[in-house]
Amino acid sequence: MSFILASASPRRSEILTMIGIPFEVDAPRVDENLKASHPTELPRLLAEAKAKEVSLRRKDMWALAFDTLVFLDERPLGKPQDADDAFKMLSALSGREHEVITGVALARNGMIEESEEERTKVFFRKLKPKEISDYIATNEPFDKAGAYGIQGIGARLVDSVEGCFYNVVGLPIALTLDILQSVKEA
Amino acid sequence: MSFILASASPRRSEILTMIGIPFEVDAPRVDENLKASHPTELPRLLAEAKAKEVSLRRKDMWALAFDTLVFLDERPLGKPQDADDAFKMLSALSGREHEVITGVALARNGMIEESEEERTKVFFRKLKPKEISDYIATNEPFDKAGAYGIQGIGARLVDSVEGCFYNVVGLPIALTLDILQSVKEA
Repeated sequence: MSFILASASPRRSEILTMIGIPFEVDAPRVDENLKASHPTELPRLLAEAKAKEVSLRRKDMWALAFDTLVFLDERPLGKPQDADDAFKMLSALSGREHEVITGVALARNGMIEESEEERTKVFFRKLKPKEISDYIATNEPFDKAGAYGIQGIGARLVDSVEGCFYNVVGLPIALTLDILQSVKEA
Repeated sequence: MSFILASASPRRSEILTMIGIPFEVDAPRVDENLKASHPTELPRLLAEAKAKEVSLRRKDMWALAFDTLVFLDERPLGKPQDADDAFKMLSALSGREHEVITGVALARNGMIEESEEERTKVFFRKLKPKEISDYIATNEPFDKAGAYGIQGIGARLVDSVEGCFYNVVGLPIALTLDILQSVKEA
């Protein structure tokens, strides 16, 4: 089964390539300012909106979309706006646990076929202010929700995880395989 | 503080490079057929033997060594000898939990300064025989303890982890930073 990855994220493309799954990329064009009754529903709703949008433009093709957000006490952390914002986020994450939620949705001709979410707990080391500012100086935090990348220099910040590691990078592998498999068998 | 990575593993070098730690490599020359009162002690004993050996050859330098083993029900799984052996190992890991233990040791002039271990639980998906044989056909299993690599095509086999992800790749990042830090401060 061939499908369209409805995501412009190079990290998601890298993961699918790493595990040997063929795909084509088409970046979604959606307004990310969705309303949800609870913020933890946002990743799934956004993934659905992306999958629908791409599948409407690409007749009869499967479109697979993702949206990943970092939650601290159920409040979403987006991408930091500047170095001060990154410092505040990383200080808030230091020495404690947070949750990464990725929504995954598969659509065809504008109809959602599957829609799921994956949650992973991430435990940060207790960070010294100098460790945080050294990390910000690498510029890695700025394009990343929660101001860190677990598959980069940001791996230094993490003590342990509980759940799917690749979910934290942006693509939950086991869940994605299940969704692709269920459609293949239908 | 500069140190010698007492390991020939390219994956360990990659992780240290990824997190921006400078090091030099010197592969240890040790007999890996050690005796231990319990097999789960082997990673630490082997890391100690490697760190000692390298530090004796490199006067006044810090040598940091690692040894990673995969344990199923506390029995160690080494590298598979052939495709049949890999098939047996991966079938045994399918649908259940196992443990990866890495020993870490730091030595100077033949004296062990620090010696620790890190344990991570890995949960495998329930694998179909075809998934296992497809994976073996990639040749990825053959140089890896437990016959899989979590940072490669083998990521397809894994449902979730509990603990340090990079420990499964062979270098527990948080523990390594702690050990390097303790020596720096001493």
